[in-house]
Amino acid sequence: MNLKPTAPLGGFVELLPAQQRFVDASIETMRDIARRAGFEHIDLPAIERAEVLTDETDWSETATQMFLFQKGDTKMGLRYDGTVGLARFVAGNMNDLNFPCRLTQFSKRYRGERPQKGRYREFYQMDFDILGIGGLSANYDAEIIKLVADIYKALPEVFGEYVINIGSRTFWNELAKYLGLTKDQIEKVFVLIDRRLKLEAEDWKNGMTEAAGNENGAIILSVFSDGYEKFMGKAPKLDRAITELKEVMALLDSMGVKAAKLDLGTMRGLGYYDGIVYEAISMTYPELGSIGGGGRYGNLVGRFSKTQIIGSGYAIGTNRALITALERMDLSRYKTAVDVAVLIIGQESVAYAMKILSELRDNDIVAVPYLDVDKKFKNQMEFADKINCKFSIIIGEDEVKSNTLTIKDMASGEQKQATLSKAINVVKSDR
Amino acid sequence: MNLKPTAPLGGFVELLPAQQRFVDASIETMRDIARRAGFEHIDLPAIERAEVLTDETDWSETATQMFLFQKGDTKMGLRYDGTVGLARFVAGNMNDLNFPCRLTQFSKRYRGERPQKGRYREFYQMDFDILGIGGLSANYDAEIIKLVADIYKALPEVFGEYVINIGSRTFWNELAKYLGLTKDQIEKVFVLIDRRLKLEAEDWKNGMTEAAGNENGAIILSVFSDGYEKFMGKAPKLDRAITELKEVMALLDSMGVKAAKLDLGTMRGLGYYDGIVYEAISMTYPELGSIGGGGRYGNLVGRFSKTQIIGSGYAIGTNRALITALERMDLSRYKTAVDVAVLIIGQESVAYAMKILSELRDNDIVAVPYLDVDKKFKNQMEFADKINCKFSIIIGEDEVKSNTLTIKDMASGEQKQATLSKAINVVKSDR
Repeated sequence: MNLKPTAPLGGFVELLPAQQRFVDASIETMRDIARRAGFEHIDLPAIERAEVLTDETDWSETATQMFLFQKGDTKMGLRYDGTVGLARFVAGNMNDLNFPCRLTQFSKRYRGERPQKGRYREFYQMDFDILGIGGLSANYDAEIIKLVADIYKALPEVFGEYVINIGSRTFWNELAKYLGLTKDQIEKVFVLIDRRLKLEAEDWKNGMTEAAGNENGAIILSVFSDGYEKFMGKAPKLDRAITELKEVMALLDSMGVKAAKLDLGTMRGLGYYDGIVYEAISMTYPELGSIGGGGRYGNLVGRFSKTQIIGSGYAIGTNRALITALERMDLSRYKTAVDVAVLIIGQESVAYAMKILSELRDNDIVAVPYLDVDKKFKNQMEFADKINCKFSIIIGEDEVKSNTLTIKDMASGEQKQATLSKAINVVKSDR
Repeated sequence: MNLKPTAPLGGFVELLPAQQRFVDASIETMRDIARRAGFEHIDLPAIERAEVLTDETDWSETATQMFLFQKGDTKMGLRYDGTVGLARFVAGNMNDLNFPCRLTQFSKRYRGERPQKGRYREFYQMDFDILGIGGLSANYDAEIIKLVADIYKALPEVFGEYVINIGSRTFWNELAKYLGLTKDQIEKVFVLIDRRLKLEAEDWKNGMTEAAGNENGAIILSVFSDGYEKFMGKAPKLDRAITELKEVMALLDSMGVKAAKLDLGTMRGLGYYDGIVYEAISMTYPELGSIGGGGRYGNLVGRFSKTQIIGSGYAIGTNRALITALERMDLSRYKTAVDVAVLIIGQESVAYAMKILSELRDNDIVAVPYLDVDKKFKNQMEFADKINCKFSIIIGEDEVKSNTLTIKDMASGEQKQATLSKAINVVKSDR
């Protein structure tokens, strides 16, 4: 009989217990910050109707990027982000949510693409979204940026020093309108802005004048040299975009979010964003690329409902950051979760030992028994060593008779007989 | 443009925030009990190679029960339980685990079957497994049953009064050998034992004598009337099976697990179990059917490794129990997670209010601001009412100038000006 493969599929990650403990602790930190900010946890299905996942009617390309399959007559697939399901959920439960509502998701997402180093086909993301009906002040964008900054700051081992670049799609949209650019010109100009740091400076500048014409190209380029505030007073909507961006930056400054930097080159692609946009990068670990991003979408649920829901949302990509952290970290802080190993001499001592075990656990002590009592005591001690517990409690005939136990400090090797309540105190005072 | 459907696919569940809060709190209780018992959390991929998921070469039937799909040349699918991935993981990481090792999973599983009422295509299960190399004392079975009993007991709203039926596949295997039953007879007899409560008593008895012959049939039936201990002394391996079961029952009794009941009709199907088996039923909510079950498998990783790993494992099916609980529960205890709404009069007060907000959250107070400051104050108050927060903190020009705030008790309507530190005390002392 051939043995089956034990490795997970390419692009899928699984962690050993100590690694998972570090990851779980990091996630718990993130969740706690979201909880204190009043974000409600929602847990949406991993499988959606294919028509929910994409607007495309040609499935061939979509199918290569996603995991799609068919059951009966229904085409469906695994979610690739948190936004599509969020939009569907919010549209379907509008009357049961209190707007502006704040929702958080922490879930696995799936990309069907070919596995490559550093690319995952299954990965965790944590999303934070604030949603309003008909309107949503840009103050909420500032709040989300502060929240995300708090999360990055709480996990320096994972994210290092970071910067959150802040741009404004509204500013560019309104400037383009003011300059009278055509739809075709706008698309070319926006693609160029998005690629600013990826192209040679000269090519980029030439591209801009080519795309927008000499005069308009020069005006657009001047935004990056002279700033955006000088366009104040040209058009009412452009004024509003400038004021909004100024207010967000001032608010972030007053909240002490030093990592927030104005960068009008931040576009977040050409997708659904249409207001303030933000994207974070680790300065300490630039190889991580983007460590999260988001922005404002003016019509989140448009494909599901006629009600206008405006959202400001952020997704933190946790997988690459956490897994890279595991590679460089000393995990010794996470090497054990066990306080006490309970070692037992003889089957007739097991019942008494199990009572001790229950009491320990009821006192919030992590306690693991070694119940193969036919093994030599040496094996039991080796087990206690291997699991890195702080104490062993040894139960034999004497301890059962005297209603006591023997407790051994695994670091010092010191060993003494004690009552259960004394042992509980010893273990707890060691924390 | 046609709007897309907002309901999730049939067989998939999604909850509103208050419902999710109750579910999350229940899961946290379960996780905490597992943590104190030293179970390590592992988080395996949801997608496995098809050859890992099944031994079958004919995919047609398997494919209807599972979500299977193909990427490139690789057939793969979504996990339908926790055991298959566990076996693969343990076989692949044997040198990095400390045996007997204890692992817990809490993850979504998927069944491709046609959706029906009460049947889920995506559902959560929580697994607990203790794994040993070459051997594993039945004392561990007793430990797992105690752990599970603690979990059920901690969540009476979900599981009600319950019983954990305990059987022994070892006993039946050894009795069958002692009686000299053929392989064909054994299969028929075991199927009948498994169906004991589903058939009419007369049909069941007749079936048994038909399957095993008159004499052997009568002996098997006598187990249910006279007990299993009378077979002691007939054959050494049968003796061991009887002693093991007696020891487990005695240990459960001494640990005070009153819900544990001997029931030799408990078989858990004809699958991989081959030792002590257990299955829990809610007496209060019999409509839930099985609320969890498990048992001993003598060769967990046989398809992945030549090392003999023996496991004792339990899976709690949480979905149906939690969702049924939601239907009958008063969720008012879970209706809010928010301590304080921060209401703000005027954009020029926002920066000060955001500092207050930060301080509240840093003091572990769940605080939500209303940042659409152009809305009427009446709207802000309505929002505070709707989210059921305990207090509102109101910030306007006066509060900014005097470096104070106004705090309103939402239940009594009482309102007073206070310093931030005083307000923090008021909120915290209300808990």
